[in-house]
Amino acid sequence: MPLQTRESFVDVLIVGAGPAGLMCGNAIAVAGGVNVRIIDQRPSKISVGHADGLQPRTIEVLQSYGLAERLLREGSQLHMCAFYNPSQTGGIELTARAPDISERTARFPFKLALYQSAIEDAFIDSMAHHNLRVDRPVKPLTIELSRDQEHLRSLSSYPVKVTLARLDATIDTEKLEVVHAKYVVGADGAHSWVRKALGITMDGDQTNYVWGVVDMVPDTNFPDIRNRAAIHSKNGSLMIIPREHDKVRLYVQLSEKDVVDPETGRVSKTKWNPEKILEVARKSLHPFYISPLADIEWWTIYMIGQRVASRFSVEDRVFIAGDACHTHSPKAGQGMNASMNDTHNLAWKIAQVVRGWADPSILRTYESERRKYAKDLIDFDKRYATLFSGKPRTSDNQDGVSHEEFFKAFETAGSFMSGIGLRYGPSVIVNAKHQSCAENLIVGQRMLPQVFVRAADARPVEIHDLLPADARFKIIVFLGSMEEESRLAEINALANELGSPTGFLRRYSMDGQTSSPMFDLITIVAGKKEKFNYLSVPLVFRPHWSKVLLDDTDATGRKGGGAYERFGICSNSITFVIVRPDGYVGMVAPATASRDVNEYFTSFLTLRHCSS
Amino acid sequence: MPLQTRESFVDVLIVGAGPAGLMCGNAIAVAGGVNVRIIDQRPSKISVGHADGLQPRTIEVLQSYGLAERLLREGSQLHMCAFYNPSQTGGIELTARAPDISERTARFPFKLALYQSAIEDAFIDSMAHHNLRVDRPVKPLTIELSRDQEHLRSLSSYPVKVTLARLDATIDTEKLEVVHAKYVVGADGAHSWVRKALGITMDGDQTNYVWGVVDMVPDTNFPDIRNRAAIHSKNGSLMIIPREHDKVRLYVQLSEKDVVDPETGRVSKTKWNPEKILEVARKSLHPFYISPLADIEWWTIYMIGQRVASRFSVEDRVFIAGDACHTHSPKAGQGMNASMNDTHNLAWKIAQVVRGWADPSILRTYESERRKYAKDLIDFDKRYATLFSGKPRTSDNQDGVSHEEFFKAFETAGSFMSGIGLRYGPSVIVNAKHQSCAENLIVGQRMLPQVFVRAADARPVEIHDLLPADARFKIIVFLGSMEEESRLAEINALANELGSPTGFLRRYSMDGQTSSPMFDLITIVAGKKEKFNYLSVPLVFRPHWSKVLLDDTDATGRKGGGAYERFGICSNSITFVIVRPDGYVGMVAPATASRDVNEYFTSFLTLRHCSS
Repeated sequence: MPLQTRESFVDVLIVGAGPAGLMCGNAIAVAGGVNVRIIDQRPSKISVGHADGLQPRTIEVLQSYGLAERLLREGSQLHMCAFYNPSQTGGIELTARAPDISERTARFPFKLALYQSAIEDAFIDSMAHHNLRVDRPVKPLTIELSRDQEHLRSLSSYPVKVTLARLDATIDTEKLEVVHAKYVVGADGAHSWVRKALGITMDGDQTNYVWGVVDMVPDTNFPDIRNRAAIHSKNGSLMIIPREHDKVRLYVQLSEKDVVDPETGRVSKTKWNPEKILEVARKSLHPFYISPLADIEWWTIYMIGQRVASRFSVEDRVFIAGDACHTHSPKAGQGMNASMNDTHNLAWKIAQVVRGWADPSILRTYESERRKYAKDLIDFDKRYATLFSGKPRTSDNQDGVSHEEFFKAFETAGSFMSGIGLRYGPSVIVNAKHQSCAENLIVGQRMLPQVFVRAADARPVEIHDLLPADARFKIIVFLGSMEEESRLAEINALANELGSPTGFLRRYSMDGQTSSPMFDLITIVAGKKEKFNYLSVPLVFRPHWSKVLLDDTDATGRKGGGAYERFGICSNSITFVIVRPDGYVGMVAPATASRDVNEYFTSFLTLRHCSS
Repeated sequence: MPLQTRESFVDVLIVGAGPAGLMCGNAIAVAGGVNVRIIDQRPSKISVGHADGLQPRTIEVLQSYGLAERLLREGSQLHMCAFYNPSQTGGIELTARAPDISERTARFPFKLALYQSAIEDAFIDSMAHHNLRVDRPVKPLTIELSRDQEHLRSLSSYPVKVTLARLDATIDTEKLEVVHAKYVVGADGAHSWVRKALGITMDGDQTNYVWGVVDMVPDTNFPDIRNRAAIHSKNGSLMIIPREHDKVRLYVQLSEKDVVDPETGRVSKTKWNPEKILEVARKSLHPFYISPLADIEWWTIYMIGQRVASRFSVEDRVFIAGDACHTHSPKAGQGMNASMNDTHNLAWKIAQVVRGWADPSILRTYESERRKYAKDLIDFDKRYATLFSGKPRTSDNQDGVSHEEFFKAFETAGSFMSGIGLRYGPSVIVNAKHQSCAENLIVGQRMLPQVFVRAADARPVEIHDLLPADARFKIIVFLGSMEEESRLAEINALANELGSPTGFLRRYSMDGQTSSPMFDLITIVAGKKEKFNYLSVPLVFRPHWSKVLLDDTDATGRKGGGAYERFGICSNSITFVIVRPDGYVGMVAPATASRDVNEYFTSFLTLRHCSS
């Protein structure tokens, strides 16, 4: 390496600016206080094609960064799914239409189809507000992790050394750079250079299912061209996804022998073109016709691999995320969702550790939480892809997949596919010891959406909007009813406890006098907007007038109310609900067990005011 | 005038860039096809103070220009109103809280408090997208209207001559300009130069009520500081309006003798300051305290005038709008709302006439509709201001205003104050002949909000969002149920009629083959999303797949449905609902009376393809 090589230091280096890398970069930038850099070897971002679907939970996650609204406007919302099967007269016919999302608690009860580029733009614009831009075209050449245990354990050290090459450099001396990073995130796709450089293997197999994909504006008489349509025909399976504006995407099942080169065992795209894929689609779609109204926007052919990386991290200093650690079929629309949710899970942990809030031990939960999910995803995908790609049951094929079988799988899969069913297992940050005090706020699952009204101004607010992904823990205090004088003693006692320098709210702050910046507090009272005086809530429970909510309907009587009952929380005692920065319930506990809440935080937070 | 004076020609010249002028400029710019200019004599726009409240109907109107969303985010939503009255122990106490909006059909069931400047910014940004910017500081010096009747009647003439002075001109030759305009709108405030130049008088009186206004961030123990609060005390009346962020506005009743200069009869601001106004407020607010946390942001003192201009137009070539034609008390929060709704009413009419779509006779309806409203507003204001400014009824003042009296007025006034109760009387564009075919869509009132689902993709849509203020008439065709074969003959017959060159849809287009650009068509079928095939709707009723709606619930079953019944429309026949470009129902008619619909349009639209 020439002497002139530049050297630099960074808290976090992200390799790859696809959905996983951008989610990570934006999340860390929003959290603040972390020196982060994101590189990509492509000279510019993609514009068409690629991933296309956001699941309900992913929309909730994007909204926690303030990014969902513009995507909801731009994208195509999929509310219903139409199922087509072989008809008696040949060809296909509509069997049924059903809601595409069966998960009742979804805040956004639909899928959103939208080109990957629009989603990337939302991140890029948000990052720009925080002065973070993708550095491109820049390629990593070498990565080296220190083997010195002391070095690895030290919070102030930069144990990862990455050599970067700037691909558009005009002078050799500008080309190379050595970056010393505290943490590296490899979000560099299915062929991840980071993964390979670290020697992490992928476990699993290539399947025999081969698919063609075509994006276009169609001319058709197919009645469900604007719904998601799952078509099982005697001539193969077809999935239709309506896209933004008048576009649609077709996923067309192709025959292995037509597509796979027998010599290499790989998909050979050379003999194919979109018109040939459409020819296959037309056979499945008979008696309906379909043709492009204008040029085909994008197309591809691929074989499904179903694999999970053997590990997601090395020494909790280098992580891989997204397609770099799991590949699966696109039929369930999970790809981009799983990827973004990987780094949504990881980013706040890195941010808290870099800022000195949390102990590095929380980083272990990234692999335990996300690799478990990735394996479940592959298992799910195997079952689902088999059903979808299988031949339909007809009078002459009694072994085929019946509509009832497929529809049952569709329904039971709904919770998993939507992302809402996801439940992280017990860990240092997931403690279900007191689950019974809030039976329906499942510890490890995302906080349920619910409308409350603000006590001071009766404005209805969605609790999710008070849980932004800003790397802070949210302490929701369900104070219960304040109508009975008898309860005030209990409430005041807790106020004193939390207001003391040893209470968990102030224990982690620099001075012990104010609440720690890593906590945000919301208070929910079982009271009525017509009567309740928000000033009666002790000061420690109302850091701002907007933080006191009532479990009541809004002024129209149409929104809100019933949360205590819905959540299974008693209104005659005080209950804590601890929501992690990523929106998942970390712990629920009665105020009488505040010692356990203290222990929960003690197990992974750093006592800043003691150590400084 | 020197020889060098510039001369220019413009379709519409707007004088004044306050809310009325900006609404006008933006509406005409959005409509397109009109050469419009807007001037203001102030060198820059206001930044603090002034008007502060948007009523529910005004929010709907702003949303029809796509402008409500950002204001809803920025503003303070007022959902509840708190009423305080003298207590037994001296001072005041909470009597009741009630929903601030009693109008059940409001799409946005709250008031929005926000500084006028934010609302002006929304218009200014939107106008910029259409390449229209406020030309300032520019002042009109003379205005002259041609007296030549032929000139006044000709569509191609520019009968208004206005001399403008550029106030920041550095060279004399750049200073003056003569503008020849087809139409001039004077939106230049209560002291309107345009009004005075035209010799239009104001009818009505000055009242004896004097008010002080203070904007600040308060330190207070008053429990309703974030609600709208109407306070009647023995020491005078007080109104609190919570503003954006933590700010509030106080409207404080002052004593006439303390404020009005006996020599001039005018309000004298010189002896006053915000602390003196606050001293008065504190007496009304006892036993609660209030003080500014930081500097006072803005303050003023004024006496209420209740006046309406004797006419709103001269020759339907020059119009006045907003404060230029009506002044009243701010207590009912109508000022900015009335002003913006004036030009919302006027702009589309001017745009249609300039584009050659409509006959100039529709311009007459501006005065007939808006002057009637202004007079109603003053009548309302007189009753309401008397009640609000009057002494409260107490044991030692039995003649005072009781809470019950005030609250009853508050409730009955709700529909008027919200702007939703407004009903325009019969005219060339308001025809109630067939009201009975859609009993609850009152002709002359704004179209009711209602959620439908799109037939093609089951996406729930609010009908208001399909009725943008784009200067086009919206034809909503309620086709009824299509399940019975027997109805298809009727539907197909109407399709043929509307598809013919003499049907009203095509009659006004250039070629008679396509629909006129001045119409937008929406079709609503009484059908179910699980079964209905949107392709079964005849082509003339579905200009795009997104225009066919179902009166059904969405996939969650939580939104939509029941519109036929709610509107009082029969699902066994076809019903037309004609919505004016400003969102008001112009006519309802059964398809069997399509001749009357033809006549409705013939009475004010221009037959372009015949005359060209």
